[in-house]
Amino acid sequence: MTAATATILLSCPDTPGLVAKLANFIYSNGGNIIHADHHTDLSAGLFLSRIEWQLDGFNLPREIVGPAFAAIADPLGAYWELHFSDQIPRISLWVTKQDHCLLDLLWRSRSGELKAEIPLIISNHTDLKPIADQYGIDFHHVPVTAETKAEQEAHELALLAQYNIDLVVLAKYMQVLSNRFIEQFPKTLNIHHSFLPAFAGAKPYHRAYARGVKIIGATSHYVTADLDEGPIVEQDVVRVSHRDEVADLIRKGKDLERIVLARAVRSHLEHRVLAYGNRTVVFG
Amino acid sequence: MTAATATILLSCPDTPGLVAKLANFIYSNGGNIIHADHHTDLSAGLFLSRIEWQLDGFNLPREIVGPAFAAIADPLGAYWELHFSDQIPRISLWVTKQDHCLLDLLWRSRSGELKAEIPLIISNHTDLKPIADQYGIDFHHVPVTAETKAEQEAHELALLAQYNIDLVVLAKYMQVLSNRFIEQFPKTLNIHHSFLPAFAGAKPYHRAYARGVKIIGATSHYVTADLDEGPIVEQDVVRVSHRDEVADLIRKGKDLERIVLARAVRSHLEHRVLAYGNRTVVFG
Amino acid sequence: MTAATATILLSCPDTPGLVAKLANFIYSNGGNIIHADHHTDLSAGLFLSRIEWQLDGFNLPREIVGPAFAAIADPLGAYWELHFSDQIPRISLWVTKQDHCLLDLLWRSRSGELKAEIPLIISNHTDLKPIADQYGIDFHHVPVTAETKAEQEAHELALLAQYNIDLVVLAKYMQVLSNRFIEQFPKTLNIHHSFLPAFAGAKPYHRAYARGVKIIGATSHYVTADLDEGPIVEQDVVRVSHRDEVADLIRKGKDLERIVLARAVRSHLEHRVLAYGNRTVVFG
Amino acid sequence: MTAATATILLSCPDTPGLVAKLANFIYSNGGNIIHADHHTDLSAGLFLSRIEWQLDGFNLPREIVGPAFAAIADPLGAYWELHFSDQIPRISLWVTKQDHCLLDLLWRSRSGELKAEIPLIISNHTDLKPIADQYGIDFHHVPVTAETKAEQEAHELALLAQYNIDLVVLAKYMQVLSNRFIEQFPKTLNIHHSFLPAFAGAKPYHRAYARGVKIIGATSHYVTADLDEGPIVEQDVVRVSHRDEVADLIRKGKDLERIVLARAVRSHLEHRVLAYGNRTVVFG
Repeated sequence: MTAATATILLSCPDTPGLVAKLANFIYSNGGNIIHADHHTDLSAGLFLSRIEWQLDGFNLPREIVGPAFAAIADPLGAYWELHFSDQIPRISLWVTKQDHCLLDLLWRSRSGELKAEIPLIISNHTDLKPIADQYGIDFHHVPVTAETKAEQEAHELALLAQYNIDLVVLAKYMQVLSNRFIEQFPKTLNIHHSFLPAFAGAKPYHRAYARGVKIIGATSHYVTADLDEGPIVEQDVVRVSHRDEVADLIRKGKDLERIVLARAVRSHLEHRVLAYGNRTVVFG
Repeated sequence: MTAATATILLSCPDTPGLVAKLANFIYSNGGNIIHADHHTDLSAGLFLSRIEWQLDGFNLPREIVGPAFAAIADPLGAYWELHFSDQIPRISLWVTKQDHCLLDLLWRSRSGELKAEIPLIISNHTDLKPIADQYGIDFHHVPVTAETKAEQEAHELALLAQYNIDLVVLAKYMQVLSNRFIEQFPKTLNIHHSFLPAFAGAKPYHRAYARGVKIIGATSHYVTADLDEGPIVEQDVVRVSHRDEVADLIRKGKDLERIVLARAVRSHLEHRVLAYGNRTVVFG
Repeated sequence: MTAATATILLSCPDTPGLVAKLANFIYSNGGNIIHADHHTDLSAGLFLSRIEWQLDGFNLPREIVGPAFAAIADPLGAYWELHFSDQIPRISLWVTKQDHCLLDLLWRSRSGELKAEIPLIISNHTDLKPIADQYGIDFHHVPVTAETKAEQEAHELALLAQYNIDLVVLAKYMQVLSNRFIEQFPKTLNIHHSFLPAFAGAKPYHRAYARGVKIIGATSHYVTADLDEGPIVEQDVVRVSHRDEVADLIRKGKDLERIVLARAVRSHLEHRVLAYGNRTVVFG
Repeated sequence: MTAATATILLSCPDTPGLVAKLANFIYSNGGNIIHADHHTDLSAGLFLSRIEWQLDGFNLPREIVGPAFAAIADPLGAYWELHFSDQIPRISLWVTKQDHCLLDLLWRSRSGELKAEIPLIISNHTDLKPIADQYGIDFHHVPVTAETKAEQEAHELALLAQYNIDLVVLAKYMQVLSNRFIEQFPKTLNIHHSFLPAFAGAKPYHRAYARGVKIIGATSHYVTADLDEGPIVEQDVVRVSHRDEVADLIRKGKDLERIVLARAVRSHLEHRVLAYGNRTVVFG
């Protein structure tokens, strides 16, 4: 699938004819749909859709696709996004001291698994700067205290703007973002080292051990104003036993964290995720 | 979702405009789509789709839906099926001596999980007749030997016709069906007690134990002329350890068999499965 | 393994020589160990062990095994249990209206998977009496209200004593037991329809749906005074998607509940579970 | 657990008193057992055991432990190994062109997850030399053709001897080792990118796709003379769907390969694996 494609993610109040409207827009302009998936949340009365089509042979010039589609979508009261596959999203990775998620995402990026550019790493510590250097990625050390938080977040927002960042990935960033930051930059994925909503907050592995669970998990979600309450994109679990001490839970959890975060980032980058309320649709 | 719906399953050579054609057929006749999922197998050049819409408000009388859709689908060289949700499929369960899959499917049917009628149980043994009696289901004892096989399969085909059966489920039926039977009644689901293609054929648990695997599985597939080679609908696995002897594998496997077969039967009954070659699409 | 065996479950403060002491007790009396597994919880300073040996050739008469072992175990400050494999435990199943766990356990018992007798079913409703009748098991209807609870629990304790019950299994019994009951009958397994500690309490599937989780679970635990806080014996999970509504979560969850509860009951019946604090060791 | 421990892995024909003999050897010499796990393979008539004890307080000098234990084990006809936790095993990683398993094991080694030294990387290609350089590990390019195989394997055996290697890990090494090599260096772990015994041999992902399976797997096993037939140490699986093309299977499989191989290497390094015939016991 090397030729460029366009993808529309859309959600709107459910009403008859929506699939036909979307499909006709593409077909009547000469496009060939290569992926179409729709979902109706009956209890929310919401229609959600993802359509991807080949731009080769599509009659509308790129700059017209959005305005032309708006003429269809806006009367429906729709939220929608339009993405072109050759416009590579730009990610900023935020880290503290743990390197496993950072290294994993960098490796996936370099190996072509994640179609994204990663021009910016931000950290409240300097421990992982050598990794940034090794990959030739700009590293900004932005320490945060209760007193400097507002100021430093403003600095971070400026960096995101400067580097033209589309997505922030908190790859084990051990700081809570303020509501003001989240309002101004809402596209942020986090990895939490528990099977949410179990063990939200601090030290989930220690609490999982103390509770004596037989399975631990990890959860990737969009960041919202409520800590660990944002829409979940991906979760996975692994079995533990009485032989596993806290250190084993941490070790096993790291593998989960890497994989769960990578899957969530990939789904986001492929424009497969639509969040609404604290739920998501992740199109297959 | 109590109101009646219609579902179309369709596969045809891929060409632009297919989603639009399907959606327009439904929309232009006043239907409201509640499920639409499409898949393109790029290597096979095949488009596969499932669309379900509410019949309430649909303008075409039921007996016209099929012919009207044929006018669209036949020029596309499509294979397609049309199902109405209030036409309950009729299943025949085939068993030998093991009761776990039989009891499981009967419980699911009675509890409303499987929307199907089960008027006929066939077995080459009489061990499970009491269960059929308890549920008030006709039980036909059809013993099979190499000599009587052709004759007995003709008898079984007659029974399927007499009871107006849509789907045969081999719920641990320990006989191989002849090609002739399969040609005449192709809608047959089997449960094989291994993670196919590993351990196709006889005594898979014994062979899994002998091989020293750390995970065992079960596979539900449509029956074809090649033993254990039909299109796979569902598989699942469970971990085993050196503590598990053959008897433990059999016990753990029974839980897998019940669940895997039930999922496959349910997907089939909801018209979510399209087989092509030895592959399936199972729509979500 | 048809010959009778003896099993000792033991936990005591850790100190050198414990494995040798246990093994010597058995070997010096002519026993052949067929299963021995030990665990040291370093943070609790606790040694936990399960040893099973063949009684054939063991020199001590049965009635002496306990007293002889006490001479070794009591100086260690040990909690210990002694079980003989031909003394079949007696279970009471407690239910409300849902039949899936009840039927599943009855089937497993009849098929030989669970080595237990089930002479008594107790329910606060009468819906499932026909199943008890069909299996020839005594059914006692013990309705419970806030006013009658103390009196009815006394009645239930009398029934447990009368039927000589070793283990109560709450197989979807939708009532909370009082602390007084639990103190008097501490061997009670429950199945909770969530991945504890997530969604403890009422309506876990509805809350899982509302939270938008991607995986649901079930948990079997011993009942303690704190609701849903008892030591966990077994958990398992299944993936869900945005396609799954609450009814689908309930349906998928039922399969989990059946299997998780059955595994926990089996582990208990095989004397593989040692609870301490709110943790368990489940010997393999 | 920072203090040094000793571990014995042992297998021998089953006979009464084995656990007592092992435990007494340690206890009578002042050792404190911190892990003891035993297994009896009844069909093979084999007793298998792993015992780990603290050396602090143990009365025997290190160089005497082996000879003293031999006096007990040799009359039993036992195979046994003795390991000290502060003697760090030395690994040679063998690779071809794919880097994911190599990088994963190097990261785990550096982060302390794997207690091993990795002084030697061998490859039949030079693609991954930069990674070796970056980690400061000696890299030997040993290209192999049908004509040079015998000679090059002799060279490799010399390298293993020179670097004092205890374990070879084939981390996506795309060459078959000769029987002669395996006889001379039997401690070799491989990762095969399928759920063995399904899809042994070449191109397992392509064949899994062609077969239309719903789950793929990876298997780590000791290398024996029969290709992909060696004793399995670890397996795991991941679900795939009709949406997944061969490239997706390869991508998903890479995550499996990394984790399955890492778990197997870790189990081996902790002296938890006993192989016999084509089976293994992996002690918990």
